[in-house]
Amino acid sequence: MIQKTDLPITYDDVRAAWKHVGAHLEPTPLRRYPLLDELVGATVFVKHENLQPTHAFKARNAFSALGQLGPEARRRGVIAATRGNHGLGLCYAGQTLGIGVTICVPVGNNPEKNAAIRSFGATLVEEGQDYDETLEIAKRLAARDGLHTVHSTNDRTVIAGAATLTDEILAQLSCQESDDEEIRKVRSGLAAPGPIGVSLPLDLLVIAVGGGSQAVGALTVLAERAPGLEVWGVQAANAPAQQKSWLAGENVTTESADTIADGLATRTSYEMTRSALRAGLERFLLVSEDELRNAIRVFLDTTRSLSEPAGAAGLAGVLQCRKELRGRRVAVILSGANIDRATLASALAE
Amino acid sequence: MIQKTDLPITYDDVRAAWKHVGAHLEPTPLRRYPLLDELVGATVFVKHENLQPTHAFKARNAFSALGQLGPEARRRGVIAATRGNHGLGLCYAGQTLGIGVTICVPVGNNPEKNAAIRSFGATLVEEGQDYDETLEIAKRLAARDGLHTVHSTNDRTVIAGAATLTDEILAQLSCQESDDEEIRKVRSGLAAPGPIGVSLPLDLLVIAVGGGSQAVGALTVLAERAPGLEVWGVQAANAPAQQKSWLAGENVTTESADTIADGLATRTSYEMTRSALRAGLERFLLVSEDELRNAIRVFLDTTRSLSEPAGAAGLAGVLQCRKELRGRRVAVILSGANIDRATLASALAE
Repeated sequence: MIQKTDLPITYDDVRAAWKHVGAHLEPTPLRRYPLLDELVGATVFVKHENLQPTHAFKARNAFSALGQLGPEARRRGVIAATRGNHGLGLCYAGQTLGIGVTICVPVGNNPEKNAAIRSFGATLVEEGQDYDETLEIAKRLAARDGLHTVHSTNDRTVIAGAATLTDEILAQLSCQESDDEEIRKVRSGLAAPGPIGVSLPLDLLVIAVGGGSQAVGALTVLAERAPGLEVWGVQAANAPAQQKSWLAGENVTTESADTIADGLATRTSYEMTRSALRAGLERFLLVSEDELRNAIRVFLDTTRSLSEPAGAAGLAGVLQCRKELRGRRVAVILSGANIDRATLASALAE
Repeated sequence: MIQKTDLPITYDDVRAAWKHVGAHLEPTPLRRYPLLDELVGATVFVKHENLQPTHAFKARNAFSALGQLGPEARRRGVIAATRGNHGLGLCYAGQTLGIGVTICVPVGNNPEKNAAIRSFGATLVEEGQDYDETLEIAKRLAARDGLHTVHSTNDRTVIAGAATLTDEILAQLSCQESDDEEIRKVRSGLAAPGPIGVSLPLDLLVIAVGGGSQAVGALTVLAERAPGLEVWGVQAANAPAQQKSWLAGENVTTESADTIADGLATRTSYEMTRSALRAGLERFLLVSEDELRNAIRVFLDTTRSLSEPAGAAGLAGVLQCRKELRGRRVAVILSGANIDRATLASALAE
């Protein structure tokens, strides 16, 4: 079992994150679907983070990170090199909190994503031929203008923001009669910390691992409140650096991270989440591109929800392990839903 | 302006419906999206009825109808010939309330829909070569087994159930600070009936018309609570019977109703909604199959939500009238989301 010393944050950090997350984001539904239960042969809870205002759980991370900035950093603004959901979260939270956000993307970045970034009032810098060049440009701008850089993973407030997702699931499961009330208590810091006093109708959480904020957030919450639950990680087989690092017990980098699941496409593990993942994940699955596309179809058919490949990775892991999961009670997170039309069409084509 | 005598139901019927709808269905979100506002050039509220448990507003109609049955009818059960969202709503409400539901579909009906019907524990009768034959079979079974037939439109409790949708929108708009509280009051019958005391940030509702329960429900609620708001109807140009009847002031039937929007594919108007639509709709738009497919794409791109063609018809109407709507404040209903893969793929292909 994971020790609290393996974790980069504490449950107190999660409580601090709730003050900012709870003030700006509604709880997302936790739902079951008879057709999905039937297909998997298990009890499957779907946490609908696709219904966040940016269609991904990263909005939680952003409110936690920006909400906890000091007045000087708020005044100057923040910057990030990102093309994905972390960036959209920052844009949305920045707009809500009145904090300037600069997002750096490479030349030729997806125009739909650029439009979404601009629609949230952020400054968009299109410079650099690839992500690494763009990252250097972001660093230079941060130094020149005194902007605060928000890392997508190596930031305690970011991980604590992601942890609120698991806390919300526990509140919804432990208090099905009055979950709103319970969530409100958690959000306002009134919920008693420590183990949940009732038996939860859940055995494990299956969580997609990109940087690892969501999985490490989950491990932090479970260590405090429901130590009996397992967490399984899922990565794209085409971007296995995190899983290889988990197996090796040290950082392993890969040459490429060529997967349709751009939200999981890392070529390295991350300093702040590496040890916690190693200590806490019960299993770490790899799923193929075909399995990702299939999971997108299954979410469409059974829940009528859109998911991007990274957002369907948890379900892809569950479907891969159908046999072992028979009769068990499992939660998957549907996040995010920011899929482009071509990828959706390719998933439908099979 | 519409007179209450033009309406087949009263606001008291809506209050009666709330007791059953409010007990079993959570409020659905009413949301805005910066990209959608920008694209339309107006303030657009999206009512997310795609998030009902059956992914369509018809679940409201079903709870209202089944909830108000007497003990004898409940014991015997209900029947309907339907392949669509009305049927799914009845299945779900029947399962929840412990009322037996029989759904009759033609031989060769979409297997996905059949699976969904069975997943809610309903009895599925696959008989008849087309819808009309199936309808006759349903009538025979109803007579033989003493089952109560729930019509999708010509039923006061059905229309009152649909009306709760508009009531919920008004509660959400009039009380943005504490909409849950307001909705709770409405649901429990505590909300004051009569005109809303505050100015609403809304000018009109654009509503897809199949049988017309949703539009007539809206007219009933607005007549009581917000008489200044307009309601526009939208039909598929390939299934224009309702619109032709509205223009003519009497029932007009058409030879065919060949549209991808199966939820709107009627060849006739309906006794119980005809006069109210005629008296209450400010405009009645027709949208092409291409406009429906385009609206599905726009919902995907801007809200990351799935819609079936009928579910995107309201938005298709708004997009058609972009010029007239510039700067106005409009609500559209996203319902339902039960699109099959082939239709979705064809919408993406353009």
